[in-house]
Amino acid sequence: MRQAGRYLPEYRELRAQAGDFLTTCLTPEMAVEITLQPIRRFAFDAAILFSDILVLPHALGQSVRFEEGTGPILKALTRASDIDDLAVRGFIDRLAPVYEAVRRLRADLPAQTTLIGFAGAPWTVASYMIEGRSSKDFAKAKAWAYRDPVSFQRLIDLLIETTADHLICQAEAGAEALQLFDSWAGVWPEGALRRWCLDPARAIRERVRAACPDVPMIAFPRGVGLLYETFAETSGAEGLSLDTTVPLVWARDHVQTKVTVQGNLDPIALLAGGEAQREETARILDTLAAKPFIFNLGHGILPETPIVHVQTLVDHVRAWRAPA
Amino acid sequence: MRQAGRYLPEYRELRAQAGDFLTTCLTPEMAVEITLQPIRRFAFDAAILFSDILVLPHALGQSVRFEEGTGPILKALTRASDIDDLAVRGFIDRLAPVYEAVRRLRADLPAQTTLIGFAGAPWTVASYMIEGRSSKDFAKAKAWAYRDPVSFQRLIDLLIETTADHLICQAEAGAEALQLFDSWAGVWPEGALRRWCLDPARAIRERVRAACPDVPMIAFPRGVGLLYETFAETSGAEGLSLDTTVPLVWARDHVQTKVTVQGNLDPIALLAGGEAQREETARILDTLAAKPFIFNLGHGILPETPIVHVQTLVDHVRAWRAPA
Repeated sequence: MRQAGRYLPEYRELRAQAGDFLTTCLTPEMAVEITLQPIRRFAFDAAILFSDILVLPHALGQSVRFEEGTGPILKALTRASDIDDLAVRGFIDRLAPVYEAVRRLRADLPAQTTLIGFAGAPWTVASYMIEGRSSKDFAKAKAWAYRDPVSFQRLIDLLIETTADHLICQAEAGAEALQLFDSWAGVWPEGALRRWCLDPARAIRERVRAACPDVPMIAFPRGVGLLYETFAETSGAEGLSLDTTVPLVWARDHVQTKVTVQGNLDPIALLAGGEAQREETARILDTLAAKPFIFNLGHGILPETPIVHVQTLVDHVRAWRAPA
Repeated sequence: MRQAGRYLPEYRELRAQAGDFLTTCLTPEMAVEITLQPIRRFAFDAAILFSDILVLPHALGQSVRFEEGTGPILKALTRASDIDDLAVRGFIDRLAPVYEAVRRLRADLPAQTTLIGFAGAPWTVASYMIEGRSSKDFAKAKAWAYRDPVSFQRLIDLLIETTADHLICQAEAGAEALQLFDSWAGVWPEGALRRWCLDPARAIRERVRAACPDVPMIAFPRGVGLLYETFAETSGAEGLSLDTTVPLVWARDHVQTKVTVQGNLDPIALLAGGEAQREETARILDTLAAKPFIFNLGHGILPETPIVHVQTLVDHVRAWRAPA
């Protein structure tokens, strides 16, 4: 999950002085500084690049801006011909500041701190490109896919190709692991999920592997429940990020046997702190930490989370030892 | 799922003339007329009472109103003592118009049309009572449960008791089946899900069974993924409503072996219509319809759904026959 954010006063201070959110993402010194902020405070084992999944549609020529309190606003794609108008040629040059930030980070970070790059998965990015903003039911994007799967597939294919290139460039600039966020995977029936989320994840994994065979990928198909096992078996990702709802013992027995798992503390348990945070954290560690595992939240940290709860969490995870 | 709604012109017309939404729910002639509208058009096998899950907090003395475009607005509970201020005494009298509507409906409906009553499950209702409105992350309600499980349990217990009474009164007035909607069940880690959703569903089932042993109950723990199997095994409900994301073959093998299943067409496939609607519907029927099954949507119908798609769906489901 994003490590920087409004729960950190130094982040709020920097963002108050900076321009709009997208410019912040695309200004290397800003992206570097924000990426380093939580590492300075907590010395996490890994740093995740400060960026946004919507830098890709921006680089493809779609109008993207962020409104305080509302979230992203895009000039929505409304018909198949809008897909053909996307500016694929040269899009990677428009993302050069991201790769520059990765290069500087790899130089600035302690050697033992893994640098993680990331991108949005095709379905999640496509949903923003078609809805034009956050959505409750994704009616426009899903109805497009149901009504005209041919043009929707064209958009997904374009996103597979450009997302893979974007990840490869991050890896070549120094990212040592890559995460693919499919935040809205959990809205599809199984067949559509396989077509619009699982197959694209696998296609991206294969393209990135061909270019950078040694860089592992973590997929985060949030909310796919039972299908986590299928993702573990067939996405090709070396790691899977579990959302908060995934039962731990099941994940240990059905997912962790196939891939490294990451997760999955409820961000609201971290917000609440105290006994609930301690119990939920202990349950996760005791069930998953003895096998290949990355401790993380199950979703993004909330802005109102007390910093002291994060420090308590880090101390708790660091102190954990496998039962003798 | 709710059968009436803004996709029907006769509903829009009636609502335009009527007062606020809650008054419409609590005026028997209105509730009866709106319940009958979709039955007149489509002659569904069952009619679901037109009402709302928030009539309960209203009857408990909490301020509840509905704003067009925003949804429900409640005067949020903010501290444990607010729970003790709820007006449990006499709450059932304030719901008398609901039971009057049920009585009239049982008289007006064709004998072969099953009448389904319903209520919100304790967690989902509690989430509105604490958040005061629809929420993206349920941070206030979940943080309350994590920080102060004792008072949160008191609220849930109060809702178990009053919800069971509300369902019993509907059954005694003539409802022949009861549905318990836990629309926001899918936001909890497993342990909390068992405590705040599964245990209350079972407690309600037991109370209702003691009073009305012959009235079956359908639970809808939306978004609980794998835990659907646990609900089938231990909630005591005779039926489970599957959300759109539940894989069909898994549901057939792990859930339908234990209870009747209901579901789960993606409302957006119904919005889209055409080939996608046909394919998704056929997949559901072919996988589930040979065993105890109620065809339904996986979530509520969208207001912009063309009526002709609903008619096509009804015809499709009616024409289905088990392979010889």
